[in-house]
Amino acid sequence: MPLSGGMSYTRPTPLIQSLPPSVPFVGPEVQERQRGAPFDARLGANENVFGPSPRAIEAMRDAASEIWQYGDSSSHDLRSALAERHGGSNRNVVVGEGIDGLLGYLVRMMIEPGDAVVTSDGAYPTFNYHVTGYGGILHKVAYREDAEDLPALMARAAETHAKLIYFANPDNPMGSWWEGARVAAALDDLPEGCLLILDEAYVEFAPEGTAAPVDLSDPRVIRMRTFSKAYGMAGARVGYALGAAPLIAEFEKIRNHFGMNRAAQSGALAALHDDAWLAEIRRRVARAREEIGRIASVNGLTALPSATNFVSVDCGKDGDFARSVLAGLLGRGIFVRMPFVAPQDRCIRISCGRPEDLDRLADALPGALRDARG
Amino acid sequence: MPLSGGMSYTRPTPLIQSLPPSVPFVGPEVQERQRGAPFDARLGANENVFGPSPRAIEAMRDAASEIWQYGDSSSHDLRSALAERHGGSNRNVVVGEGIDGLLGYLVRMMIEPGDAVVTSDGAYPTFNYHVTGYGGILHKVAYREDAEDLPALMARAAETHAKLIYFANPDNPMGSWWEGARVAAALDDLPEGCLLILDEAYVEFAPEGTAAPVDLSDPRVIRMRTFSKAYGMAGARVGYALGAAPLIAEFEKIRNHFGMNRAAQSGALAALHDDAWLAEIRRRVARAREEIGRIASVNGLTALPSATNFVSVDCGKDGDFARSVLAGLLGRGIFVRMPFVAPQDRCIRISCGRPEDLDRLADALPGALRDARG
Repeated sequence: MPLSGGMSYTRPTPLIQSLPPSVPFVGPEVQERQRGAPFDARLGANENVFGPSPRAIEAMRDAASEIWQYGDSSSHDLRSALAERHGGSNRNVVVGEGIDGLLGYLVRMMIEPGDAVVTSDGAYPTFNYHVTGYGGILHKVAYREDAEDLPALMARAAETHAKLIYFANPDNPMGSWWEGARVAAALDDLPEGCLLILDEAYVEFAPEGTAAPVDLSDPRVIRMRTFSKAYGMAGARVGYALGAAPLIAEFEKIRNHFGMNRAAQSGALAALHDDAWLAEIRRRVARAREEIGRIASVNGLTALPSATNFVSVDCGKDGDFARSVLAGLLGRGIFVRMPFVAPQDRCIRISCGRPEDLDRLADALPGALRDARG
Repeated sequence: MPLSGGMSYTRPTPLIQSLPPSVPFVGPEVQERQRGAPFDARLGANENVFGPSPRAIEAMRDAASEIWQYGDSSSHDLRSALAERHGGSNRNVVVGEGIDGLLGYLVRMMIEPGDAVVTSDGAYPTFNYHVTGYGGILHKVAYREDAEDLPALMARAAETHAKLIYFANPDNPMGSWWEGARVAAALDDLPEGCLLILDEAYVEFAPEGTAAPVDLSDPRVIRMRTFSKAYGMAGARVGYALGAAPLIAEFEKIRNHFGMNRAAQSGALAALHDDAWLAEIRRRVARAREEIGRIASVNGLTALPSATNFVSVDCGKDGDFARSVLAGLLGRGIFVRMPFVAPQDRCIRISCGRPEDLDRLADALPGALRDARG
């Protein structure tokens, strides 16, 4: 019988039909179109405003005319360099379309509808998006003193028989961090059959010793890393996961094998080899963190300690007040974001900008605070 | 209880555990590493050796220094331009990480374990990879005179209560094609509740009238298009799907919202606006098809008609013979591929190269044939 119209045509699965139409983040370009003007400072997505290594830019430019070729489906050269950097073999590394893409693959690998997953209440929404998208059940643990609470995450995982724990070190959106040795020690309390996802997207900005001293062959943990933050290549979409070879091999069964942009592969490889640029980025980000702290202080606010390229600034009142401050900054052309969940939503989150970006923030903040105080 | 080792740590889902470790395609770089030498001619992946528009190259080069920014999560400008080009609105267009990425999303949206899907036996393996990866059951219909058999696909879908039919026009790997008006007319025989995936990856190379005259709001069909072929940007990973707004909206619930490479978005937009380059590519590809036909003929082989940027060449014997010819070409530094399934596997498939690439093919083919004939 031919199709007669009506709603039967799409027939998405019941799971897909049950999903909300909301998205994890509204991008700045979308917000710019909504407000009808570009932002004057882009300090909301924890991008690295200082940009990638000049060598990475050159590599991507050179690759533009070769873009008629698919990328290397195995990302062999990049994986080899990453394996060498992290003390493992290629079999411990999978390269994917950003950490977002890799988290999606990992959740698909591990989670069936109804399976339990543990994360912190207010942690990375895109991870939650993937878990919900595959029918997993999220169990959320409160932050403790603005930091993710690893023992509580482990305990909740034991209670719920969770298959995955998500733990970011340093944390986003608060910028707090754990000493790496404490993370490694905590692994002994990981419930059997549970995998710890250790998201180290910001770890290159953190103090020495923040990266957990975990052997890449340790089957209890998978680490997520990215070229989007310290390496300044958010728009290139290059993330990687480090873990035990049998786990990494599972990605081969489901990933988009020709999904990597060829120029991005070249750029990431060049960026990885420019340690001097990375050191310079660390210095610039450290100076920007200090400057954000100074601007906060001048305005009677408190900047929280940060091991990342952003600073959460405590606006001193509740979430409604911080949301008003945020709205005031957005209205004045300053793109920033803030935590979603109380009591962390007393803060606004400001990415480390160039001096000129932070000058604009300094100009806009007093008015935003005045308006919020009504 | 702490983890004591063993195999329990990964715990992938039973579906993932059941999947084979094989991949849809072994990339040319992987083959080059295996043989220990680069290929002299890259004619196996249906890449557009002539490359993208110079405007696209310039746009990607310019974007390299701005790569610190995530891409626009909505691909707004590109979607708008595509909507205008195809006579719809933004709501009829979703942009994704190549057709491969979009097919993965679509299968995830529609297929639960056990659901039936219909395709042609020997058609696109990456589609099959996604179907199997989500637990779908593939029902395969034989080619008919080296073309996909749309009435038989529809009949099989009715028998099996299939949710999806995959149909490529023009076809890969044979290069055959249907007149678009016949495809549109056949939609009246589509079983209720079944969606036709019309993969038009190669349609820009095809004769006028090959693109099906289907309204973008028609809920029975979703069309897949790409910048990888005629636009010469395979390594950029930009595909798009055209369809009814309610169906397109479902992608928003599951896609990797910040998954697009920012430079690739710019490049694709520039490429789309360079119609003169597209026309030039069509001319060069047409000349290359003729030259492949001439080379085949000189060697006593038969080139099949093609509406694509590749030509399937009938080697005149069985699959084992064609595989020997293929091996002989690979051994002589010519990267080509061939159909996987009999009787189409009597052919080898040669992408349209530059004159110098085809000169190398012409040099290598006689020896490969001599060796295959033993």
